[in-house]
Amino acid sequence: MINRLLNETEAQAVLITDPVSMRYISGFRGGEGAVYLSGNRRVLITDSRYTEAAAAESEFTVAEESAERKRYEILEELLKEDGVETFAYEDLSMRCSELFDLQEKLPFIRNWERLGSRADNLRQIKTADEIAKMEKAAGIADKALEILLGMLKPGMTEKEGACELEYQMKKLGAEKTSFDTIFASGVNSSMPHAIPSDKKLETGDFVTIDFGCTIDGYCSDMTRTVVLGRADEKQKEIYNIVLQANEAALAELKAGVRGCDIDAIARKAISDAGYGACFGHGLGHSVGLYIHENPRLSKTDCSVIQENMIETVEPGIYIPGWGGVRIEDMVVVTREGYRFLCHSPKELIELGV
Amino acid sequence: MINRLLNETEAQAVLITDPVSMRYISGFRGGEGAVYLSGNRRVLITDSRYTEAAAAESEFTVAEESAERKRYEILEELLKEDGVETFAYEDLSMRCSELFDLQEKLPFIRNWERLGSRADNLRQIKTADEIAKMEKAAGIADKALEILLGMLKPGMTEKEGACELEYQMKKLGAEKTSFDTIFASGVNSSMPHAIPSDKKLETGDFVTIDFGCTIDGYCSDMTRTVVLGRADEKQKEIYNIVLQANEAALAELKAGVRGCDIDAIARKAISDAGYGACFGHGLGHSVGLYIHENPRLSKTDCSVIQENMIETVEPGIYIPGWGGVRIEDMVVVTREGYRFLCHSPKELIELGV
Repeated sequence: MINRLLNETEAQAVLITDPVSMRYISGFRGGEGAVYLSGNRRVLITDSRYTEAAAAESEFTVAEESAERKRYEILEELLKEDGVETFAYEDLSMRCSELFDLQEKLPFIRNWERLGSRADNLRQIKTADEIAKMEKAAGIADKALEILLGMLKPGMTEKEGACELEYQMKKLGAEKTSFDTIFASGVNSSMPHAIPSDKKLETGDFVTIDFGCTIDGYCSDMTRTVVLGRADEKQKEIYNIVLQANEAALAELKAGVRGCDIDAIARKAISDAGYGACFGHGLGHSVGLYIHENPRLSKTDCSVIQENMIETVEPGIYIPGWGGVRIEDMVVVTREGYRFLCHSPKELIELGV
Repeated sequence: MINRLLNETEAQAVLITDPVSMRYISGFRGGEGAVYLSGNRRVLITDSRYTEAAAAESEFTVAEESAERKRYEILEELLKEDGVETFAYEDLSMRCSELFDLQEKLPFIRNWERLGSRADNLRQIKTADEIAKMEKAAGIADKALEILLGMLKPGMTEKEGACELEYQMKKLGAEKTSFDTIFASGVNSSMPHAIPSDKKLETGDFVTIDFGCTIDGYCSDMTRTVVLGRADEKQKEIYNIVLQANEAALAELKAGVRGCDIDAIARKAISDAGYGACFGHGLGHSVGLYIHENPRLSKTDCSVIQENMIETVEPGIYIPGWGGVRIEDMVVVTREGYRFLCHSPKELIELGV
């Protein structure tokens, strides 16, 4: 993996600074530090808060950075020993000031090469072990949702609902949530990324719950929308359009298709029903150690989807002042199609009816 | 505030992209987007997932970015209308690739000015309203810890402990944790930033708990170390050295002192006791919408601490293979000294004794 990365650049050495790239490449989970890779050596640079854990988690040589021995000083030694003139860095995640500082402190580097997504791309196709972790996380999320749905009732606030859901996931063995839980009810559900509020759930509310957890760093992601009480005709209509869009996109998903084409299928289903303007976001994204990874299922990403990539399929319709619906599955792509990693039911659930 | 920021630069317009800066300046909590500020206008650029919330939360004009109307196209219009030739950006948080892309797409900008910490610095001195939010968050953390300490017993895992603590904070009204809870027992407590594991608590373990929550985005931060059962002599010795370092530093903290001088007081107390090599991290940091803000109480930050800054004071001693102790308070700095925002007891607690 590291040789592949080094071979893909013109550089004699690569600096990895994205916390997830660092974890994937070195095994170190602390997230603070940098990894130096060259043909000669693999060094993990971190500070005293993490050095003990780093030595346990990673096979790389650990170098301790501190106020007395700064990161650039450690890098200077390594780069000079290795005779590096072209040095690659993760421009997609490194901050401008960090690059400018390194360029000033390491003037002997002739070329600073942008690594682009080359380190991230290593993670796109998941191993069986990675898929198993994500399936475990998704299974916990399924179970936690089932428990939560038994608890939801009018008068409970969105915040309380999100809190219970997160608690259940952790009790079931999750490390943490994979992102801030979205728990939006009634008119709030028209905001795709609503923040849980003190609004109380009311009979007749749509409740959109977009959530996930991690196992060994790997994320799950799922959205379900339910109704508290009986759904009215408009709610049923909107729900079914979104569900059909979800299913139409899934029906065409398999290794070899392009993400933008799958996005277009769901978008057409929603547009044909007259709600095209109410579906503003992309259809889905890959998931891994980050909740949002590439390739995407979106208008602008025409990458070819490959076997053992993980993708979400999450169409939605959002009507300001009324509410919204999103239905999101997380699947692993196979040669013939896909396999669900989440298993919560998708027919419209009318809670307490 | 915005005028102050504009006046501090040579630029005719400023681009704010850090999620917290964006929130502080515009009111928008969604975190995804950018804010454009000039003498003529204040525009919040975000996508359809957030535009409804953005319009409700911010008084700025909201411009929707999308695949059809990209951020740089919106910026191009604004910059040309305003006749901008020098454009400032947040180099401390903007990613390299983002800057390079903007520079390519907006070639008519003659000078790209690094804003450095000027936007972040606006947040250093807290208003009474901000302090009240942080005090509320700290109060919730105090209460949750009290409940947790009543639940801890041998056989519970670190993960379970962290889970219960986070659940209690949310039940008490917290929005979310302000960072990943650190919950380290026994030998694990020698790792300042340990990740909660499946290790079971055992009688005699030190348990270090570093945690916090947010209220309206504002963070609390506190660490307490307790013993499960009776402390042995070495545990008492180490605990008391750390406590004395904490108290010695606090005794000198007030508006007008330098952060590095306060750090040196705690460091001397620990060094004099023979454990200087076991305290590798800085003494403390400011807290606000981010858990770690400037100025710091550290060797390398000699900023003058001012009234109504929030600082943590968190010395520690970490002995690999044995364990560690950290005691952390969060205080607001006053003219005469400081006021505690957290109130959990600091004498060594021997649980169940």
